[in-house]
Amino acid sequence: MARRRASEFFLACGRGRSALLGSFDFVSSPGLFYTHGKAVEQSSKHFSVLSRELDPSKCCFMPSYFGAIKRRRTLEMVNIGAFHHMLFSSVATNAKRNPAFSTINLDDVLHFKEILGHKNVIQDEDRLLAANVDWMRKYKGSSQLLLLPRNTEEVSKILKYCNSRCLAVVPQGGNTGLVGGSVPVYDEVIINLSAMDKIISLDKVNGILICEAGCILENLNSFLANEGYIMPLDLGAKGSCQIGGNISTNAGGLHFIRYGSLHGNILGLEVILADGTILDMLTTLRKDNTGYDLKHLFIGSEGTLGIITKIVVLTPCKLSSTNSAFLACSDYLSCQKLLAEAKQDLGEAISAFEFMDCNSVEMALTHIEGARNPLPASLYKFYVLIETTGADESYNRTKLEAFLLRSMEVGLISDGVIAQDLNQASSFWQIREGLSEATTKAGAVYKYDLSLPVDMLYSIVEEMRARLGNIAKVIGYGHLGDGNLHLNISTTHYDEKIQAQIEPFVYEWTAHHRGSISAEHGLGLMKAEKIHYSKSEETVKVMASIKKLLDPKGILNPYKVLPQSMLQS
Amino acid sequence: MARRRASEFFLACGRGRSALLGSFDFVSSPGLFYTHGKAVEQSSKHFSVLSRELDPSKCCFMPSYFGAIKRRRTLEMVNIGAFHHMLFSSVATNAKRNPAFSTINLDDVLHFKEILGHKNVIQDEDRLLAANVDWMRKYKGSSQLLLLPRNTEEVSKILKYCNSRCLAVVPQGGNTGLVGGSVPVYDEVIINLSAMDKIISLDKVNGILICEAGCILENLNSFLANEGYIMPLDLGAKGSCQIGGNISTNAGGLHFIRYGSLHGNILGLEVILADGTILDMLTTLRKDNTGYDLKHLFIGSEGTLGIITKIVVLTPCKLSSTNSAFLACSDYLSCQKLLAEAKQDLGEAISAFEFMDCNSVEMALTHIEGARNPLPASLYKFYVLIETTGADESYNRTKLEAFLLRSMEVGLISDGVIAQDLNQASSFWQIREGLSEATTKAGAVYKYDLSLPVDMLYSIVEEMRARLGNIAKVIGYGHLGDGNLHLNISTTHYDEKIQAQIEPFVYEWTAHHRGSISAEHGLGLMKAEKIHYSKSEETVKVMASIKKLLDPKGILNPYKVLPQSMLQS
Repeated sequence: MARRRASEFFLACGRGRSALLGSFDFVSSPGLFYTHGKAVEQSSKHFSVLSRELDPSKCCFMPSYFGAIKRRRTLEMVNIGAFHHMLFSSVATNAKRNPAFSTINLDDVLHFKEILGHKNVIQDEDRLLAANVDWMRKYKGSSQLLLLPRNTEEVSKILKYCNSRCLAVVPQGGNTGLVGGSVPVYDEVIINLSAMDKIISLDKVNGILICEAGCILENLNSFLANEGYIMPLDLGAKGSCQIGGNISTNAGGLHFIRYGSLHGNILGLEVILADGTILDMLTTLRKDNTGYDLKHLFIGSEGTLGIITKIVVLTPCKLSSTNSAFLACSDYLSCQKLLAEAKQDLGEAISAFEFMDCNSVEMALTHIEGARNPLPASLYKFYVLIETTGADESYNRTKLEAFLLRSMEVGLISDGVIAQDLNQASSFWQIREGLSEATTKAGAVYKYDLSLPVDMLYSIVEEMRARLGNIAKVIGYGHLGDGNLHLNISTTHYDEKIQAQIEPFVYEWTAHHRGSISAEHGLGLMKAEKIHYSKSEETVKVMASIKKLLDPKGILNPYKVLPQSMLQS
Repeated sequence: MARRRASEFFLACGRGRSALLGSFDFVSSPGLFYTHGKAVEQSSKHFSVLSRELDPSKCCFMPSYFGAIKRRRTLEMVNIGAFHHMLFSSVATNAKRNPAFSTINLDDVLHFKEILGHKNVIQDEDRLLAANVDWMRKYKGSSQLLLLPRNTEEVSKILKYCNSRCLAVVPQGGNTGLVGGSVPVYDEVIINLSAMDKIISLDKVNGILICEAGCILENLNSFLANEGYIMPLDLGAKGSCQIGGNISTNAGGLHFIRYGSLHGNILGLEVILADGTILDMLTTLRKDNTGYDLKHLFIGSEGTLGIITKIVVLTPCKLSSTNSAFLACSDYLSCQKLLAEAKQDLGEAISAFEFMDCNSVEMALTHIEGARNPLPASLYKFYVLIETTGADESYNRTKLEAFLLRSMEVGLISDGVIAQDLNQASSFWQIREGLSEATTKAGAVYKYDLSLPVDMLYSIVEEMRARLGNIAKVIGYGHLGDGNLHLNISTTHYDEKIQAQIEPFVYEWTAHHRGSISAEHGLGLMKAEKIHYSKSEETVKVMASIKKLLDPKGILNPYKVLPQSMLQS
């Protein structure tokens, strides 16, 4: 029970390292987060142990983005200060509530309590508030009910009932999504998977992990590290995001360049369909060509076709040698050339190739506590964070050093530093991984996640900057090695006029250059109506027909991914 | 035109290196293949050049498995001898012809001639015979019509017409499949993609190749090699198999251990649905999370959901250093331990880890012309063929040598040899890649392609051997690194009594050990009714519902993959 309750608390927890602040007298009220007493932060790995010692009724979770608190640091007093009073984006209101959906009544609540027990049927206002609002505080639903199933059968029973009653649901993991996919739009029942966080098994010879969908990514990585393996994905939100959500959104992240797509790494899934049917596709085999490989339908469909409950993932070996270098380039062309040279010289050893423009780094340095520029204070225009991984420490280090030396000699790199130890590498990564958090702390942020041909990737940043002038700060960073730009437009508050300046321009520009309007974040609510910028009409029609086939009443995560007009007709 | 006609000829071409025998006066008659005059064999790469100089009416293609002829060798006289008079398996007759399907009439033929031109609507008996029979000569259909579309629009028009007329079709690539998936069961119209063999583009910076579905795998590899890339898959049939067929069957092959599944390597597809709808999913982006990733439905669905016409594939860099070692192990446990040690020591450098039992090697040495044992004549019980690939010749070679030395010291390897040059490496691979051909030359062969936990993988070979006694020769080989066994049962002729000894035992045994009854060959006709051994009832139901959704009349490759009872009800 302690384990289950503990997991609930992640609901209110933000992106990044999970922050647990416990043992205080106190309270959160909308608009102000505030704590007294002794508060303890733990890395996710230590979370469940600690939480058992706490009285959940006295705990409150502090979204980590409100305070960049060092891990394992004990705080006597934390006063995070005023909550950002942001307007919720108006995007959510464009979708009309589907009148076919029922509304929750007392009988429904009683039924759910029968299935889950009283404690796992949440109607508490504060906890509902946290689950109704997305991480960016851009999307806010009005769900009156949060359910915390503990196993596959409970998820199945919930969905079977909801389907029969035509109650819409939103599946929720760590609620770290960036496109409004993980929060209700109206009064959908929230089904949060946090209580399903068991590691079921690890095949130590082949690195095949089976776990429940609610496992936190960082916890899985910590577990695997002890066994000589790592997860094939890594992202800034690892301390809060759940593997089920990662798979539902086909998360990419920092190591995509090395380990590729989840479509290649996920061996099996257990998924619950809208009517409660349990689809057991939990194979642990590397090869299995018996019929259609249905699991791929659920990877990246953002919880609109089924709820993922269990996962089989092929995990790569943890290699003993990791080297990180923080580099400065004078222009974007040099970044591109450096990437091409790195691919040629370092090949498969590259495990990350991230780039940031100077505005990005400046924002990180301003808003992330403890972040500091590894290079001399004068700002360069572009920065590249490169990581190589291998089995042979001296060989890999020498190879990276030689590559960097050559690149500096030919002028591709203006300045640079190789991390001398893990702490220094962490400080490099703190800048890159903290960027998303930094933009949120700076105010309201319009986030776009674009796939573009590498040579065109930075042009949209420059064009957007010219277009918006002084009304917003435009920053560009991302996974250069994968052609994935994170275009962030930072303003003081959400404003329809600013949005009208950005959209549809950004989508039209991307479509014109044959890019994707969502490289890795998904479409969610934000871009459900924009799918035609990246997909043909015929393809979207087939998607809609599959949605109708698997979820005829449309109860699963409604208003997301596909245009409403195609589903409610 | 020469290009188009040239491609047709691959129809009659067998697995393995494509063999072109031209400029003879000549003949093939059922039961006897025979040629006179000057015959020239070419690698596939040189094929189109040569074929333009030939008069197609005077050409005949020699399935390469009838004679293991050295590449680029000029033969004055080739007398292949008597064709194996095998009984066709009775498996095909278990499926009843769907009475809803129309039969071809004169108007249909005229219509197809309007779409494709006269020369691409084939009714010639000899050519139909070759296209009606599978590579193992186990499955034989009775199609009266072979169509050779030259582009996407033609495929679309064909399907639109067939769908409206309720004419069943079988999509066909190189016809190298091993489960009867690529030949008609009854009178289905054969749509062969051979004429669609254009390479459309290669992004030389990112290694992203776009090509048509009819491209021969080996041709693609040859093209890429010149540009510094390779295809992410390699298999014995590379000289004849087409990339469209590879993707339709989700081919695994020899390099799966290094480059993983096609689900991870295919970036985009163009697919024609049963009603002729063209699904353009031809993205060249590494990341694109806009809606459901439909292309995965067509990877491995064996042409039952749509016909793949174009492909975008992410190709790995061609690494300069490749090392192969041919090793002998005294028992199966040593093979397993060697694999575990290799993974630990050599990690991602391993590009193949194949194993063969002594019966396999003996069969290869007996039936493959020019094959010879790289190790001293005394036969060991097991052989392992390991290949490593890397960017640094001396480093990689030293690493492999050190690994082999350690493995020999601890007794995991009894004997072994590292290839000193490409020729020697080719001679190692000739044994492994020729195995499938060797079993066919030896007589009739029952082929099973199983995924099993590595520790149980060889037990089924031993049990089958004990079960069958002297009536058949049981051999086991396969991709040990992927847990994929090719269990081959070689007999003089196909016989229902022998088959009854093998099946359902082999499927029950595999299901009992939580394996897959098809690791990489697919289900085709052979195992369509056996799917429940590896997939749950609920999962198969969803597959059937998707089949009905995308192909309501069931015209695409009928009787394959899914049980008929689920589709015709």
